[in-house]
Amino acid sequence: MNTHRQNSDTTIAQTKHVRFVDRDGWSFVERIGNTGIVCIVAKTTDGRLVLVEQYRPPVQRPVIELPAGLAGDLDDQADETLQQAAERELLEETGYAASTWRRLVTVASSPGLTDEIVTFFLAEDLQRRSAGGGDASEDIRVHEIPLAEIEDWLSAISSAGSLIDARVYTGLYFLGKVLHG
Amino acid sequence: MNTHRQNSDTTIAQTKHVRFVDRDGWSFVERIGNTGIVCIVAKTTDGRLVLVEQYRPPVQRPVIELPAGLAGDLDDQADETLQQAAERELLEETGYAASTWRRLVTVASSPGLTDEIVTFFLAEDLQRRSAGGGDASEDIRVHEIPLAEIEDWLSAISSAGSLIDARVYTGLYFLGKVLHG
Repeated sequence: MNTHRQNSDTTIAQTKHVRFVDRDGWSFVERIGNTGIVCIVAKTTDGRLVLVEQYRPPVQRPVIELPAGLAGDLDDQADETLQQAAERELLEETGYAASTWRRLVTVASSPGLTDEIVTFFLAEDLQRRSAGGGDASEDIRVHEIPLAEIEDWLSAISSAGSLIDARVYTGLYFLGKVLHG
Repeated sequence: MNTHRQNSDTTIAQTKHVRFVDRDGWSFVERIGNTGIVCIVAKTTDGRLVLVEQYRPPVQRPVIELPAGLAGDLDDQADETLQQAAERELLEETGYAASTWRRLVTVASSPGLTDEIVTFFLAEDLQRRSAGGGDASEDIRVHEIPLAEIEDWLSAISSAGSLIDARVYTGLYFLGKVLHG
């Protein structure tokens, strides 16, 4: 969701998906045309975390991320709730539906640079519905990593040249709390 | 550090600190004039996590964050290493020096939107040197929260209207690993 626009905001430049704003001398970016952003911590019944990998042009490398996406950014889904968006993104990106959903936390990604605020959901009791891989514009590889091996796997894939999204660790923190208190 | 510029990059707009870029149709932002970004997970000898709070114009709210900042962004520090930047930022923002430093992880903050990559350090054996509060351009409030109370404190301050930076939880994840394995 875009933060409430102030009268003093100036749009410096705008593309289809991003607005570059000056607010009282502070320049930052807003995503356009969505009602929120969701990340999904999806755990299979046999204790694996579902992660996605895709090439990200801003960093020019493949990045390991939680399944995630924008809410309300498509014409026929403008009214979707955050959980509906999360259900849709999980299904599109990973091919999984989940019976059990819990809202975990809402955080700012990088609040000096963007107004981006992300809501995390825990998804459990997963059932595979399709192969996943993303919508028509995406090329997403799905990984399912046993939680007991997650640190080693993330280290290995980092050494191989992939970046890790900070929100993977945000999700792992809350997953640890859910599992171990 | 800015990612390697491609010949196909177009600068759509630029301010003093931020560049808005088009790369093959993907629009995103880069921070200008720094060699990296650091976050510090600073733990006092009596088991408190050091957090900072400041108003962030992009979200128009106070945000709770790890002490953090840009490396190499000032003329007389252009060659500083990431750890030197972390030491400097910790001292400026919180007033603490630390005897023990460990590099934890390097992650992407929001790799669809920005090339921002952040390196996390663990700082221990803290010694207070000053009141902190940030440099001349900053207005930073320092919080020291016992780790056993951190969840409750973060929930309470969220309920009171502050946002939490996602990287606080990234830091808490690694702190938990360091403390409990």
